[in-house]
Amino acid sequence: MKQSHLFAKTIRNISDDVKSVSHKLLLRGGFIFPVSAGIYALSPLGFRVFEKIKNIIRNDFDQFEAQEISMPIVHPARIWKQTGRFQDIGDELWKIKNREGEDFVLAMTHEEIAAYIAETIIKTYKDLPILVNQFQVKIRDELRARGGMLRAKEFLMQDAYSFDKDEKGMDESYEKFYESYGRIFKNLSLEAVPVEASGGVMGQGQSHEFMLISEAGEDKIAFCEQCGYKANIEVLANAKICQKCKIELKETSAVELGQTFKLGLKYSRSLNVKFKDSNGKDNIVYMGSYGIGIGRAMAAVAEIHNDEKGLVWPQALSPFAAHLISLGQNKESDRVYTALLKSGIDVLYDDRLDKTPGEKFTDADLMGMPFRIVISAKTAVNKKAEVKKRNENKVSIVSYAELNNILQ
Amino acid sequence: MKQSHLFAKTIRNISDDVKSVSHKLLLRGGFIFPVSAGIYALSPLGFRVFEKIKNIIRNDFDQFEAQEISMPIVHPARIWKQTGRFQDIGDELWKIKNREGEDFVLAMTHEEIAAYIAETIIKTYKDLPILVNQFQVKIRDELRARGGMLRAKEFLMQDAYSFDKDEKGMDESYEKFYESYGRIFKNLSLEAVPVEASGGVMGQGQSHEFMLISEAGEDKIAFCEQCGYKANIEVLANAKICQKCKIELKETSAVELGQTFKLGLKYSRSLNVKFKDSNGKDNIVYMGSYGIGIGRAMAAVAEIHNDEKGLVWPQALSPFAAHLISLGQNKESDRVYTALLKSGIDVLYDDRLDKTPGEKFTDADLMGMPFRIVISAKTAVNKKAEVKKRNENKVSIVSYAELNNILQ
Repeated sequence: MKQSHLFAKTIRNISDDVKSVSHKLLLRGGFIFPVSAGIYALSPLGFRVFEKIKNIIRNDFDQFEAQEISMPIVHPARIWKQTGRFQDIGDELWKIKNREGEDFVLAMTHEEIAAYIAETIIKTYKDLPILVNQFQVKIRDELRARGGMLRAKEFLMQDAYSFDKDEKGMDESYEKFYESYGRIFKNLSLEAVPVEASGGVMGQGQSHEFMLISEAGEDKIAFCEQCGYKANIEVLANAKICQKCKIELKETSAVELGQTFKLGLKYSRSLNVKFKDSNGKDNIVYMGSYGIGIGRAMAAVAEIHNDEKGLVWPQALSPFAAHLISLGQNKESDRVYTALLKSGIDVLYDDRLDKTPGEKFTDADLMGMPFRIVISAKTAVNKKAEVKKRNENKVSIVSYAELNNILQ
Repeated sequence: MKQSHLFAKTIRNISDDVKSVSHKLLLRGGFIFPVSAGIYALSPLGFRVFEKIKNIIRNDFDQFEAQEISMPIVHPARIWKQTGRFQDIGDELWKIKNREGEDFVLAMTHEEIAAYIAETIIKTYKDLPILVNQFQVKIRDELRARGGMLRAKEFLMQDAYSFDKDEKGMDESYEKFYESYGRIFKNLSLEAVPVEASGGVMGQGQSHEFMLISEAGEDKIAFCEQCGYKANIEVLANAKICQKCKIELKETSAVELGQTFKLGLKYSRSLNVKFKDSNGKDNIVYMGSYGIGIGRAMAAVAEIHNDEKGLVWPQALSPFAAHLISLGQNKESDRVYTALLKSGIDVLYDDRLDKTPGEKFTDADLMGMPFRIVISAKTAVNKKAEVKKRNENKVSIVSYAELNNILQ
């Protein structure tokens, strides 16, 4: 993609209201646009990071046949009334009316709709287990949206749902997603720690949060230094003592990257999601739900992978494999750009004629692609380019032909 | 994907309220789930068709560097008040308030937000043209949602926006999308006819609709049998006479598959989207917008590509390359299924043990994959399978090894 016409610009000065590191860096690098408090658009850079994250998740879910579907954002209130959440959840659930005065809610999450559809699909025990997944927008009427994409009003979420014939089946499906989340966060270069969590508005069953220890986090987790037990402080009684080691738990802040829930029968009972067992008897389906916030994952990566100059994307998440910079050598650089594209290497190409080398380097550091390739008069004369990794200072001079090998 | 645990079921009987052919077939084939009037979820089958459609569009847009972005669904009303559309558009624009009483609207379309963001990006004439695209949900408070995905309250749309420095530039960008739409509809196996259209709530500039002639359509187009002139009847004066040939225009129904708009300065002026020209003087940016409804495209394909037994997907849009059916030969079929997956061939595998051959064939016809592969005791003994194209009656017996060649 040519930077001259890129629908994104780096920003030098950010308002003092912007507190979190990731929010600052994503704004400065041109990854996100604020539209309203807690509401953002994604530039082509941010969009590409989202796609990388989604594909890492998809590839993992494909291994155990979680089927991708898509559920709507506007939900009839009657379904939420059936499970009681229309009444139980506070103002965070955004309630709206259509022109005829009918009640709807905006998707805060999709347990209700998933169960509502499952009721039409599931007939017998032979249909189960079923695992489904989607990437869909969630909307919450947050009173204090803050931290950029760490806590937004509107955000894209991966949310999966499992349907099983008994508790044992539910536990097995839960285990699949739990293990999958471990692998996914590793692939996202995020050190996520699973901790015991409260089901919150989802239900009373077992739940884990995948936590990134970080001062930017709004959650507090308690941990035992001796046995390694970890929990969101929400699940602990007043005395913060390890039940096993009888010593005091330490506390730290964390960002919740994902959460898994054993929902049990809460939704399926209200919405009548039944199956016939091998004796032809009706039973209620056991459900689980599993979610990762995509924007929050991007922000978490930005929170960790950066230096004083800007973002430092892990290769697997970077919007482009490399940032190609022409220093007054556009004819030569155009050819290298085209050749790289032909080899299937996605490159952001700084072809701008009105920027100084200093401005271009500063932008490249802010945006944070893993490789910087510079073509200047000095290198071009030998059909070579200067290559530097974003997280190293070492500069190599390589021939155009060698670029392919380095970037693939 | 194994059909035994598929999150989709075919349906034999559909309510008489369902009128349009595509709506009936998509429900019967298990592609969509109704959640509320005009609000649908996509099964794994429907989701896959959507992905195919999106990728056909993306591949075309990549050729002229339309950059993919993502804009939010909840918009602050103030931006819509600035362009006047908050006041001008009727109840179809879904207006909501948050818990603090602030006004928002649900994205009926994204001209406002695209212009709002462009204002922060575009500085000088060197930045232009810029072309952006997204696939994002649209929500309209439709009074009479009908025809399934032909007219929904909530639907996924491809919407692109162009930004240019003058009218000539706008016309060139418009031409790019106009030509692109021609290619895209061809690749979607839809015979779309471009007709002169009204800008409607978008603006007063030139506009074209890409129309599929069909009785299922809610639009009326007029055409001249002599010179080929075509227009939505909305743009015609009372007398439906061809201006050139002076003969009466004929009328027919059509489904609007896509629309292109020359927006001119309507949005950029209200939202102050300016650039400095080569003399350093401020100018207003010219905009265009270009949209295709993804659900409507799927419905249009279903409307045309079917027979009395069900859907007949064109290969480029089919959720799976083939439907593999085991007739009591699951051990053998499992092996063939795994081998096909390993070769990168996406197969829906009917591994169900409690269905008769008749039921399986009926389902396969309803779902409409381009190839049906049957493994029965008779064929398996020779390591062979029976292959039939969905749109042909001829049956061939081929070895497992040959399947790859047929399906790739």
